[in-house]
Amino acid sequence: MKVLERAAENSGAKNFAFAQPPNELILESGEKLGPITLAYETYGTLDKENTNAVLIPHALSGDAHVARRLLSEKTPGWWDSMVGPGKGIDTSKYFVICSNVLGGCKGSTGPSSMNPKIGKPYGLDFPLITIGDMVNAQRHLIDYLGIEKLLAVVGGSMGGMQVLQWMVAYPDRIRAAVPIATAMKHTPQQIAFNAVGRQAIMADPDWKKGSYYGSSVPSKGLAVARMIGHITYMSDVSMAEKFGRRTKTEKDPFKFGAEFEVEGYLNYRGDNFVKRFDANSYLYVTKAIDCFNILNGHSLDSVFQGLEAKVLVLAFKSDWLYPSNQSQEIVKACKRAGVDTSYCELSSTYGHDAFLLEIEEQTKLISHFLRTVSNSNTNGVFQT
Amino acid sequence: MKVLERAAENSGAKNFAFAQPPNELILESGEKLGPITLAYETYGTLDKENTNAVLIPHALSGDAHVARRLLSEKTPGWWDSMVGPGKGIDTSKYFVICSNVLGGCKGSTGPSSMNPKIGKPYGLDFPLITIGDMVNAQRHLIDYLGIEKLLAVVGGSMGGMQVLQWMVAYPDRIRAAVPIATAMKHTPQQIAFNAVGRQAIMADPDWKKGSYYGSSVPSKGLAVARMIGHITYMSDVSMAEKFGRRTKTEKDPFKFGAEFEVEGYLNYRGDNFVKRFDANSYLYVTKAIDCFNILNGHSLDSVFQGLEAKVLVLAFKSDWLYPSNQSQEIVKACKRAGVDTSYCELSSTYGHDAFLLEIEEQTKLISHFLRTVSNSNTNGVFQT
Repeated sequence: MKVLERAAENSGAKNFAFAQPPNELILESGEKLGPITLAYETYGTLDKENTNAVLIPHALSGDAHVARRLLSEKTPGWWDSMVGPGKGIDTSKYFVICSNVLGGCKGSTGPSSMNPKIGKPYGLDFPLITIGDMVNAQRHLIDYLGIEKLLAVVGGSMGGMQVLQWMVAYPDRIRAAVPIATAMKHTPQQIAFNAVGRQAIMADPDWKKGSYYGSSVPSKGLAVARMIGHITYMSDVSMAEKFGRRTKTEKDPFKFGAEFEVEGYLNYRGDNFVKRFDANSYLYVTKAIDCFNILNGHSLDSVFQGLEAKVLVLAFKSDWLYPSNQSQEIVKACKRAGVDTSYCELSSTYGHDAFLLEIEEQTKLISHFLRTVSNSNTNGVFQT
Repeated sequence: MKVLERAAENSGAKNFAFAQPPNELILESGEKLGPITLAYETYGTLDKENTNAVLIPHALSGDAHVARRLLSEKTPGWWDSMVGPGKGIDTSKYFVICSNVLGGCKGSTGPSSMNPKIGKPYGLDFPLITIGDMVNAQRHLIDYLGIEKLLAVVGGSMGGMQVLQWMVAYPDRIRAAVPIATAMKHTPQQIAFNAVGRQAIMADPDWKKGSYYGSSVPSKGLAVARMIGHITYMSDVSMAEKFGRRTKTEKDPFKFGAEFEVEGYLNYRGDNFVKRFDANSYLYVTKAIDCFNILNGHSLDSVFQGLEAKVLVLAFKSDWLYPSNQSQEIVKACKRAGVDTSYCELSSTYGHDAFLLEIEEQTKLISHFLRTVSNSNTNGVFQT
C-alpha cells in the first residue's frame, strides 16, 4: 500500500495523507474498483501497543478533516467541538483517525476522480458503492496503520451506519462502537427525502447525465437537494427559535425572493454547499445510505451475535430524521445478542443536527465510555 | 356580475360556471386586479330561504370540482368521498359551493390567465395575492348567488386557512366553520418546505422568470416541488405500510432510477402533477400560504372576538405537516373569545392526507355538526 503524506499547515504532525491499496477493491456488488485513494487525517499519537485508536466515520457531507482549524481555514473541522486535546474524544489520550468515504469528493476516490482507464473523471461510470464498501476501504487503511484492533468506532448519521457495519463486518477489529442518531436501515420516508434530492440534481440540465466535469456544475439542483436535507436536519423548534417568521427588513423587489429569514438561510446553505461538494458524490453517497440495511440476511436476534465490543447508542429527542425508535431498534438487537450495550436519548431541540451541536452531554457520555473501554483489558476486567 | 354557466356532462344541473365581478378587486396589498373570473361548481339545491349553503374552499392543488365523476373523467372530484347525496356533506340536504382560488389555474384568474392590458398571460406580472384575497373573491361569488349567510365553511389544509379567514373577515356571513388539519400561520419549517419547492421551480431553466407560456413548461422543477410536498402529506407509517423498502423486481440499468417503490411513486405523482398544474400558480399559492397569519394585528384572545358561528376543529394524529398542536391553538383562540367550539383529534396513519382519506370518522363528526347547526335557529336554540 502506497502512502502519501503531507505536513499540516499548523503543525509538524502528519495531517493529510493518501493511502493507495495496491490492488483493486472488490465491491459488494462484485465489481472491481481501483486503484483507490483514501484521504485521511490523524490526531494524537498512537501508543506503543497500538491500542488507543479511535476511528470516526463521517456523515453524508463530511470529510477527513474532523477537527482543528488550519491557518487557511475560516472554520475548524466538522466535529472540532468533540475531538481535540481534553475534549470528548481526547486526542491527548487517543489516536483519532478520520477518512473521507469511498465515493466522496474530498480526496478519496469517487465519481469526480480520474478514471485511469480513460483518463477522464468517472462520472456515472463510477460503480455503485455501499456502506460496506466504505468500511472495507477503511479497514485497508487501519491495516496499513498497523492497528489490529480499534479502541472504538464513533459516528453519527451515515457515520453511525458505518459504525454498525464495523460491528457486523469486522467485530474482531473493534473494542467499542458508538452509533449516534442513526438507523439500521432507511424507512421509505428517509429514502424519499434522499430520492427527491437526487431528482433535483438530475433535473438540472447542467448535470448532463453526470458528465459535467470541466463545464458548469449542476449547482441549482445540488443546492435544492441540500436545502431539502437541511430542513430534515433541523427541528421545527430549532427553526422557530432561530428564525421564527421574521422577514427581511428590506423588501425584495423580486416577488419570490427570500422574504422570510428561513428562506435566506436555506438559500445560503444551498449555495455554500455547491462550492464544496460534488453533485455526483451526492447521488452515490445518498444511494449507499438508502440501500444500507444492516439486517440484510440477518434477524434482529442474530445480526450482532458474537460481538464482544461494548456499544453505546445515542439518540436525540427532537431528531425526526432519525427518530429515537430507530436507535432503540439497534439497542434491542444488541441486547438480544447479549452485547454489552448502553443507550441514552438526549434532550435537545436541535433535531438531527444535535449530534454535531449538542456537545456537552455527548462529551460526558462518550469520554466516560471511552475511558471505561480503555481501562478494561480484553477480558473485560476493569483496571484502575 | 357576469356569469357564464355550462351544463354538466352527466346532469342537467349547472356545473361549471364563471363569475366575473364587474369591478376590479382591490387586493390586500393595495394593488387592483381585474376583471376576475372565478370558476365554481355547485351541488344540490339552494333552499327557498337561502340558508343551506356550504362553502368548501380547497387546498393547494385542488379545484372547483370537489365531487362527482363526469363521464369524461377517470377519477371523481377531490373530496367525492365526503361530498354527495347521503355523504358527510350531504348534497341532498345542503347546497355545496366550491370555487377555484384566485391565483389558481383551474379556471379562476391566476398567473396563467390572459392579462387584458397586454394580451398575454400575466406570468410574474400577476400581483402577489393572499388568503384574504382568495376569500374576498369568494365573498363576491356568495353575494352573486344571493346567499346572505352560509350555513358553513368547511376546508382542510389551505382550505382550512380560508375557513379561518372567513371567521375573521366575514363573521356575520357564516353560521358555522370547520377548519381541518390547518394552522393560524406557518411555522418556519412549513415555510421551508414550500420555499424549497419554489426554489426547485425557479431553478428549472424552462421557468424563464415565469414567462414560459407557449413554450416548454418547467416540468422538472414543478415535479420536484410536488414530490417534496407529497413526502410531507404522508406519514412515515403510511409510507411504511404502502411501500416498505420494496424494490422494483426488474433491475433498472440506470444507476439512479427509481429502485425503491417509494421513489417510483413520488416520480409518478410529480410527473402527473405537471400535467394538471401551473408552476407559477404553485409559486403564488404557496407564497399566499406562507404569508398567511390570521393573528396579524390580533392577539390570541381577540382574533375571533365576537364570532357567533359554531366552530368544529379537526386534526389528525399522524399529520406532521400540520400537527395537532396547531389546531389546538385555533381551539384555544376560539375558547378565549367565547366561541362555541368543539375539537377532535382523529386517529389516522395517513398523515396530512388523512383529511382527504380518513372519511368515516370525519363523516360522522361533520354530518352531525352540520345537522346541529342547521337545526338550530339563529338564536342558537335547538329545533327538533
